[in-house]
Amino acid sequence: MDQKFQKISIIGLGLIGTSILHAIRAKKDEYITTYAFDINPEHRNTVLKMGIATFVSDNIHDAIMEADLVILSIPVGSMKTVASLISSSLKDGAVVTDTGSTKSSVINDVSPFIPKNVFFIPSHPLAGTEYSGPESGFSSLFENRYWLIVSDKKTDQTKRLTSFFNDLGSIVETVSAEYHDKILAITSHLPHLIAYTIVGTASDLEADLKNDVIKFSASGFRDFTRIAASDPIMWRDVFLNNSEAVLEMLQRFNEDLSDLQKAIRKKEGEKLHSFFSRTRSIRKKIIEAGQI
Amino acid sequence: MDQKFQKISIIGLGLIGTSILHAIRAKKDEYITTYAFDINPEHRNTVLKMGIATFVSDNIHDAIMEADLVILSIPVGSMKTVASLISSSLKDGAVVTDTGSTKSSVINDVSPFIPKNVFFIPSHPLAGTEYSGPESGFSSLFENRYWLIVSDKKTDQTKRLTSFFNDLGSIVETVSAEYHDKILAITSHLPHLIAYTIVGTASDLEADLKNDVIKFSASGFRDFTRIAASDPIMWRDVFLNNSEAVLEMLQRFNEDLSDLQKAIRKKEGEKLHSFFSRTRSIRKKIIEAGQI
Repeated sequence: MDQKFQKISIIGLGLIGTSILHAIRAKKDEYITTYAFDINPEHRNTVLKMGIATFVSDNIHDAIMEADLVILSIPVGSMKTVASLISSSLKDGAVVTDTGSTKSSVINDVSPFIPKNVFFIPSHPLAGTEYSGPESGFSSLFENRYWLIVSDKKTDQTKRLTSFFNDLGSIVETVSAEYHDKILAITSHLPHLIAYTIVGTASDLEADLKNDVIKFSASGFRDFTRIAASDPIMWRDVFLNNSEAVLEMLQRFNEDLSDLQKAIRKKEGEKLHSFFSRTRSIRKKIIEAGQI
Repeated sequence: MDQKFQKISIIGLGLIGTSILHAIRAKKDEYITTYAFDINPEHRNTVLKMGIATFVSDNIHDAIMEADLVILSIPVGSMKTVASLISSSLKDGAVVTDTGSTKSSVINDVSPFIPKNVFFIPSHPLAGTEYSGPESGFSSLFENRYWLIVSDKKTDQTKRLTSFFNDLGSIVETVSAEYHDKILAITSHLPHLIAYTIVGTASDLEADLKNDVIKFSASGFRDFTRIAASDPIMWRDVFLNNSEAVLEMLQRFNEDLSDLQKAIRKKEGEKLHSFFSRTRSIRKKIIEAGQI
């Protein structure tokens, strides 16, 4: 057992999909054949020109039917439609995974369309940049980054998938869907929401002020604009599909922010100082954990 | 005219103060003498050991009285006390500047203590890191970064100061105190407040969740922890001393955030998508402006 995947289908040729293709190609494993598909013909053409897939197909069924591993690297809002489309083309014994940033919603959307004798193992690589589209991918995107697998038991198929993600450079951990969605709500979804908000607030300023915000952005704001430059469709879908966990974290955030707001208004220096001192220790732990 | 400053006093030996000392030293200008003082004896000792100042003084008056340029690189909450302390030691014709992140408050706090025949020209280098203390300084901190001077007219003294900041590598622009405080509220103070808040929210999570937030921090959260690791005293003082502009920007931010919150709750995909698309253009403009 623990046989390597040899025919791999990548559905969705954005940052994640093309990075997987680059990473497979970089391994120079002559036994691996890749099939690439995207609903956007321009993306397919770009990947064809880049020559990073064995086959680029105009037809999603052709891109699926030979595959022993199918990776859905598409916005989470498209999972249901795509799962229903490919359902009848999936090969017996194939493994299907996805790379979506929300897991409960993807499981709800995809599972009903997975035939008997096909294994659906949801996953999520904690890797990305603010760039999107087929030209944004690169082979080292997953190196030393976590790739979370949602599974409640170790099976031959989860082991095969783990070993494939390891080959791409990732560290694999197993979590439950609910826990994944909670963790991502605070580490990723809420930070993105807030970054989008503050950049939006700035873009509503009067013209002069706005130009100078851009000019003098280096003092903190710039980091937020990077995050807020991420793919709008991906993030729309994330917030629609992890709304419960995001709204819960947002409520906690709002309570904390309103405490600080009150402290500023009332000029409570001691309170501000103690809050600002507390947050330093989290940074230290992240540095200690080697996550810098 | 436009004579170079030759005797320079640095009051406050944190990141900014020691970076100025490093930057002056890096110029190898043998005609410049530097005098360094900090209220913390350990900081003075550290700077003495590093050998980056001509003189380190245990007495603030000794560090001031010869200087033709005095730079107050201290938290904005200490400006008033320090200005009152040094008032009688300032040399006739000396220029006093500061590097504080709020300008209206510093002008209110310092101006009353500036003797006749001494020139107070407030300033603010838009440069920094999340590190603080005398060991965090480095000579290239100001290279290609804006250094804002608050002045309503060009005088021989503002020209001298501009040329000094240029020598440290900075691009100098002149702004009004009120405009400075508004711009900084949105580009720096609000981003810091929000980063502090979200890291605080995360640090209140149950222990398991918190550990995994640290582990999986790479997905966006990590950038916020960097900002939220900044010096707590400096930032306490910023929020106490620019409260009006910060609270105004915070109100706008809160309105935008509550709009997005509502859109998530009501699953209004179109609204989210259009908001997230709008913010991308600001990033593009920052890249075009060369501020990356």
